[in-house]
Amino acid sequence: MQHTLIALVENKPGVLNRVASLFRRRNFNIESLNVGQTENPLVSRMTIVMDSDDLDAHKVEANLYKLVNVIDVQDVTNQPSVTRDLALIKVKANPEQRSEIANLAGIFRARIVDVAPDSVIVEITGTEDKIESLLELLKPIGIQEMVRSGQVAMMRGNALGVRHVPGANGKNRA
Amino acid sequence: MQHTLIALVENKPGVLNRVASLFRRRNFNIESLNVGQTENPLVSRMTIVMDSDDLDAHKVEANLYKLVNVIDVQDVTNQPSVTRDLALIKVKANPEQRSEIANLAGIFRARIVDVAPDSVIVEITGTEDKIESLLELLKPIGIQEMVRSGQVAMMRGNALGVRHVPGANGKNRA
Repeated sequence: MQHTLIALVENKPGVLNRVASLFRRRNFNIESLNVGQTENPLVSRMTIVMDSDDLDAHKVEANLYKLVNVIDVQDVTNQPSVTRDLALIKVKANPEQRSEIANLAGIFRARIVDVAPDSVIVEITGTEDKIESLLELLKPIGIQEMVRSGQVAMMRGNALGVRHVPGANGKNRA
Repeated sequence: MQHTLIALVENKPGVLNRVASLFRRRNFNIESLNVGQTENPLVSRMTIVMDSDDLDAHKVEANLYKLVNVIDVQDVTNQPSVTRDLALIKVKANPEQRSEIANLAGIFRARIVDVAPDSVIVEITGTEDKIESLLELLKPIGIQEMVRSGQVAMMRGNALGVRHVPGANGKNRA
């Protein structure tokens, strides 16, 4: 089963290394991971998607939490949350196929962000399912290249994605 | 200066660990990193954004290339490419502020993806500049939480983002 973890970490060199080592030691394969800025420049946020059972996910959560520089961790798999993935997909396209791709993009609220003589780049954001559906339809036309950001997740409503964030009570936090 | 590297790596446990260790040893701080699927299930793709001079970026590129499981690396900083970042931004919002936020979102082609009694979540994709501009406008209203995927990048036109991909000549590749 797919588990999605959010980790708030201090924005320091070596943090990613510690997290990656943890997954390596336990031999867990990460499906996607991303680390980027938050509203607080001192804090980075990781979204980690792994394929594992509940027990393993719980172990990872507990072990991450013990790491130096890790501020908080939460498994949002079964929480009401917004998850989004971003994909850029380069599709083979002659002028005729271009309009077919534009139609598909329209249906999926995707955007064509580059056109070359025999290819186009489609940008799509959404849940994994949505992106997979578009990919299925584009495959017969010919996918040349794809990059995906991996999922980012945020709890719905007022619940912060992460329970308590001692380092993150910066000035931008309401 | 900001450098954007694309690395194609084998989809195996331990690869992220090797890459993260390399950055740690050289004491380079990664601004954002993401690793996700490609059009070939055996290959993952990383987009790494680092703040460094040209010489350091070149060293990282060369060192990444030497790592086991790394198929190819390219610095696309000065190449014609499409770069996109995805952000989810939770903003404090009473009913009155909600329409102000909806207007801003419209201008930036962002989307409101969740509404709670006193907050909304805005989803935006675009270049870093575009996202920063929206953040500047939302800050006075009150940003409660933000997650960003970090940049993904793809070369424009027919040039593949990566020069030669021995492992990636799968059936989906045109």
